[in-house]
Amino acid sequence: MDSTALIAMISIIMAGFTTAIGTIFPAVSEGKAVATALSALAQQPDASATITRTLFVGLAMIESTAIYCFVLSMILIFANPFWNHMIGQ
Amino acid sequence: MDSTALIAMISIIMAGFTTAIGTIFPAVSEGKAVATALSALAQQPDASATITRTLFVGLAMIESTAIYCFVLSMILIFANPFWNHMIGQ
Amino acid sequence: MDSTALIAMISIIMAGFTTAIGTIFPAVSEGKAVATALSALAQQPDASATITRTLFVGLAMIESTAIYCFVLSMILIFANPFWNHMIGQ
Amino acid sequence: MDSTALIAMISIIMAGFTTAIGTIFPAVSEGKAVATALSALAQQPDASATITRTLFVGLAMIESTAIYCFVLSMILIFANPFWNHMIGQ
Amino acid sequence: MDSTALIAMISIIMAGFTTAIGTIFPAVSEGKAVATALSALAQQPDASATITRTLFVGLAMIESTAIYCFVLSMILIFANPFWNHMIGQ
Amino acid sequence: MDSTALIAMISIIMAGFTTAIGTIFPAVSEGKAVATALSALAQQPDASATITRTLFVGLAMIESTAIYCFVLSMILIFANPFWNHMIGQ
Amino acid sequence: MDSTALIAMISIIMAGFTTAIGTIFPAVSEGKAVATALSALAQQPDASATITRTLFVGLAMIESTAIYCFVLSMILIFANPFWNHMIGQ
Amino acid sequence: MDSTALIAMISIIMAGFTTAIGTIFPAVSEGKAVATALSALAQQPDASATITRTLFVGLAMIESTAIYCFVLSMILIFANPFWNHMIGQ
Amino acid sequence: MDSTALIAMISIIMAGFTTAIGTIFPAVSEGKAVATALSALAQQPDASATITRTLFVGLAMIESTAIYCFVLSMILIFANPFWNHMIGQ
Amino acid sequence: MDSTALIAMISIIMAGFTTAIGTIFPAVSEGKAVATALSALAQQPDASATITRTLFVGLAMIESTAIYCFVLSMILIFANPFWNHMIGQ
Amino acid sequence: MDSTALIAMISIIMAGFTTAIGTIFPAVSEGKAVATALSALAQQPDASATITRTLFVGLAMIESTAIYCFVLSMILIFANPFWNHMIGQ
Amino acid sequence: MDSTALIAMISIIMAGFTTAIGTIFPAVSEGKAVATALSALAQQPDASATITRTLFVGLAMIESTAIYCFVLSMILIFANPFWNHMIGQ
Amino acid sequence: MDSTALIAMISIIMAGFTTAIGTIFPAVSEGKAVATALSALAQQPDASATITRTLFVGLAMIESTAIYCFVLSMILIFANPFWNHMIGQ
Amino acid sequence: MDSTALIAMISIIMAGFTTAIGTIFPAVSEGKAVATALSALAQQPDASATITRTLFVGLAMIESTAIYCFVLSMILIFANPFWNHMIGQ
Repeated sequence: MDSTALIAMISIIMAGFTTAIGTIFPAVSEGKAVATALSALAQQPDASATITRTLFVGLAMIESTAIYCFVLSMILIFANPFWNHMIGQ
Repeated sequence: MDSTALIAMISIIMAGFTTAIGTIFPAVSEGKAVATALSALAQQPDASATITRTLFVGLAMIESTAIYCFVLSMILIFANPFWNHMIGQ
Repeated sequence: MDSTALIAMISIIMAGFTTAIGTIFPAVSEGKAVATALSALAQQPDASATITRTLFVGLAMIESTAIYCFVLSMILIFANPFWNHMIGQ
Repeated sequence: MDSTALIAMISIIMAGFTTAIGTIFPAVSEGKAVATALSALAQQPDASATITRTLFVGLAMIESTAIYCFVLSMILIFANPFWNHMIGQ
Repeated sequence: MDSTALIAMISIIMAGFTTAIGTIFPAVSEGKAVATALSALAQQPDASATITRTLFVGLAMIESTAIYCFVLSMILIFANPFWNHMIGQ
Repeated sequence: MDSTALIAMISIIMAGFTTAIGTIFPAVSEGKAVATALSALAQQPDASATITRTLFVGLAMIESTAIYCFVLSMILIFANPFWNHMIGQ
Repeated sequence: MDSTALIAMISIIMAGFTTAIGTIFPAVSEGKAVATALSALAQQPDASATITRTLFVGLAMIESTAIYCFVLSMILIFANPFWNHMIGQ
Repeated sequence: MDSTALIAMISIIMAGFTTAIGTIFPAVSEGKAVATALSALAQQPDASATITRTLFVGLAMIESTAIYCFVLSMILIFANPFWNHMIGQ
Repeated sequence: MDSTALIAMISIIMAGFTTAIGTIFPAVSEGKAVATALSALAQQPDASATITRTLFVGLAMIESTAIYCFVLSMILIFANPFWNHMIGQ
Repeated sequence: MDSTALIAMISIIMAGFTTAIGTIFPAVSEGKAVATALSALAQQPDASATITRTLFVGLAMIESTAIYCFVLSMILIFANPFWNHMIGQ
Repeated sequence: MDSTALIAMISIIMAGFTTAIGTIFPAVSEGKAVATALSALAQQPDASATITRTLFVGLAMIESTAIYCFVLSMILIFANPFWNHMIGQ
Repeated sequence: MDSTALIAMISIIMAGFTTAIGTIFPAVSEGKAVATALSALAQQPDASATITRTLFVGLAMIESTAIYCFVLSMILIFANPFWNHMIGQ
Repeated sequence: MDSTALIAMISIIMAGFTTAIGTIFPAVSEGKAVATALSALAQQPDASATITRTLFVGLAMIESTAIYCFVLSMILIFANPFWNHMIGQ
Repeated sequence: MDSTALIAMISIIMAGFTTAIGTIFPAVSEGKAVATALSALAQQPDASATITRTLFVGLAMIESTAIYCFVLSMILIFANPFWNHMIGQ
């Protein structure tokens, strides 16, 4: 088995692994934040504007960690410098 | 065993793994969000409009992480650049 | 052992694995959602219409992640491009 | 050891694994749902009709994920395309 | 070691594994359901008829998942198509 | 090492494993059920007849899953078809 | 290493393993049951007769699962059919 | 390495393993029972006679599972039939 | 397999691993902080200015640990001194 | 490597393992019992005589399981029949 | 594979590992501290000065452990004495 | 590698392992006991004499399990009979 | 691979491992202590002097365990006696 | 690889491992004790003298287990009898 194929395989493995693991906990955290927001809404319906605004800012920051992982996977699949180096040889 | 077959196998493995692991926690989080929404409805039936709207926005953002994983699996099965490179040889 | 058999085996393994793992947490979440709905019904019998409607929408979204996994398994068993490529050779 | 025997073994392993793992959490969830239903009945005996109806709908949806796994096992044992392909050779 | 013996061994292993793992969580869930039923009885002695009826329906559905596993084990030991195929050769 | 000895070993291993693992959770569940029954008795001494009757029915159903495992072990040790087939050769 | 010695070793291993693992959870459950009984006694000293009777019945059933495991170990050490078959040869 | 030495080693390993693992949970359970007894004493100093009597009966039954394991270890070290058979050869 | 390829592979693996693992717990912590902020808002709507300011400072410090990991990954992919040394040879 | 050295090594390993593992949970249980005793003392200073007496009896029984393990280790190091047999050869 | 490459690899692995693992729990702890600070603010808005000052001192000390790990990684990548020794040869 | 070196290595490994593992839970238990004592002091400042006395007796017994492990390590390093036997050869 | 390189590698590995693992729980404990201090401040603003003093003493003692690990890593990298011995040869 | 180098390596590994693992739980316990002390101070500011004295005694005893581990590591690195024996050869 030559090195080119091996790098291809490892890139595939890490892309899948990073996406799978990296999206776990943002999902968990978003579920937690949404659940708390719903409880807060049920408790203080009058503050719904502030609550939903804070919620969306928080969701955006949490989502950003999931996007780091997805971006890394895309880099590994479509813009991998090691693979390009190997192909270039 | 040649490299082509090996890449095929690893693509299959990572597709299944990513989908299986990546859909776990969105399911958990959605269950949590739905459960909290139901509790909130039982507690404040008057705020049902705000609650269901916030719930659906939250479910959509959580679902998005599951879809990242599913998309990656589909890319690995049907649009895999490494496989195409190997076949192209 | 030739590559064709190996791909067949790995497809079987991943199909079973994906279905087994992928249906775990939707089951857990649905159980949680149903349990919360029952508690909510016991607490607010008057809001039963809203509660059951929200419950069914939530169950449908949770069930969707289980179906992603089942669909992937069916693709791996009955519409596997790598297997078809190998057989086609 | 030839490929035919290996595929037979892997099919047996995955059938058992999928059934064993796949029935775990539906059992857990059903136990949880039944337990909650019993608590709800003790709390609101008047709403027993609504509660048992919602319980049975929920049990049916949870049971469905266990059945996905059992169906996959039966497919692997009695309608396995890879095995038929191997035998057909 | 020939393939026949190997298939025999794997069938034994999976039969034991499936039964052992597959009966774990039904036992857990039944224990939980029974415990909740006892609490409910202590809380509402008047609703004992409804409670025990719901309990027995729930126990039957939970027991069904344990029986799926036991059935699969019996199939693997006494009606194994792969073993019959091997013996038939 | 011939196949006969190997099958003997695996039968021993699986018999012990199945019994050991399979009796864990019935023991746990029975402990839970008994504990709940004792709490219920302390809470409602008047309902002792109903409580103990429900307890014994529940214990019987939970014990049944432990017995499935013990039966399977006995089958593997004293009525093993694969072993008989090997000895018969 | 001949098969006889190997079967002896595996019998020793499984005897120890089964006893060690199989006595874990009965001990846990008995501890739980005893603890609950003590709490119940502190809560309802008048019902001590019923409580201790139910406790002893429960302890007996839980102890039975530990005894299944001990019996299996004794069978493996002193009445092992596979060992006798090997020695008989 | 001859079989005699191997059996000696495995006997040593299993003796230590069984004792170590098998005394874990009795210790845990006894700690739990003692702790509950102390709480019960603080709650109902008048029922100290009944409480300590029930406590000692329970401790005896829990201790019995630890003794099963210790007995098995002693059998493996000082009265091992397989070892005697090997030495006898 | 030469050393250059091996270093490329290990760089890919560690980049994915570091990003995936390193973004898990910042996501968890941010979810927790956001959830607590929402609860605090529901409890003290008047202190919303202080709460959101403290929240954003905290989120920034938590996000910094995720960025350490992402920076390390980028260094490993695009500015790896060991890789440059190997290529330079 | 001859058998004598191997038995020596395994005796060392199991002695350390048994002592390390076997003293874990007695320590945990004693901590728990002591903690409960302190709470009980704070709650009922008048019953200090009964509480400390029960505590010391309980600590003695829990300590006994730790001593089983320590005894076994000492037997393995200083009175090991298998080692003596080997040395005697 | 020569020693120089191996040391390079191990340095990469440990740099990633140390950063990934070492930033986990500071993130968790900071999330916890921030969350508690938000609760405290909601509970005692008047003590906001003391609370935020204590919070920032605590965050600094927690952040220091993450920085220990990051520093070690930088040392391993850019100032590794073993690597310099090897290159110097 | 000769047996002497191997025994030396294993002695080092087990000494470190036993000390590391064996001091974990005494530390945990002592922390728990101290924490409970502090709570008890805050709750009943008048009973401080009894509480601290019981605390120190308990700490001594818990510390004893840590000392068993430390003693065993010292025996393995400085008074190891197997090592002396080997050196004596 | 010669011994010098191997010792270098192992030193790198253990330095990273010790720092990464050894800073985990001090971070956790400091987070816990800070969080409790903040709660205590919110509960008793008047005792802020005593609380912050006790907090800083506690943080110093907890930080000391992290510093033990960091010191050990520095010793392994910059003052390793085994490495010096090897280089000296 | 000669025995001397191997013993050096194992000493390094165990020194790091023992320090890393052995300082985990003292840190956890100290965090717990400090946290409880802070809560106790907030609850009973008048008993601050007794509380801080008991706290410091407890911290000293907990710290002692961490010091056992650190001492063992120093012995393994700077006063290792096995290493000296090997060097002496």
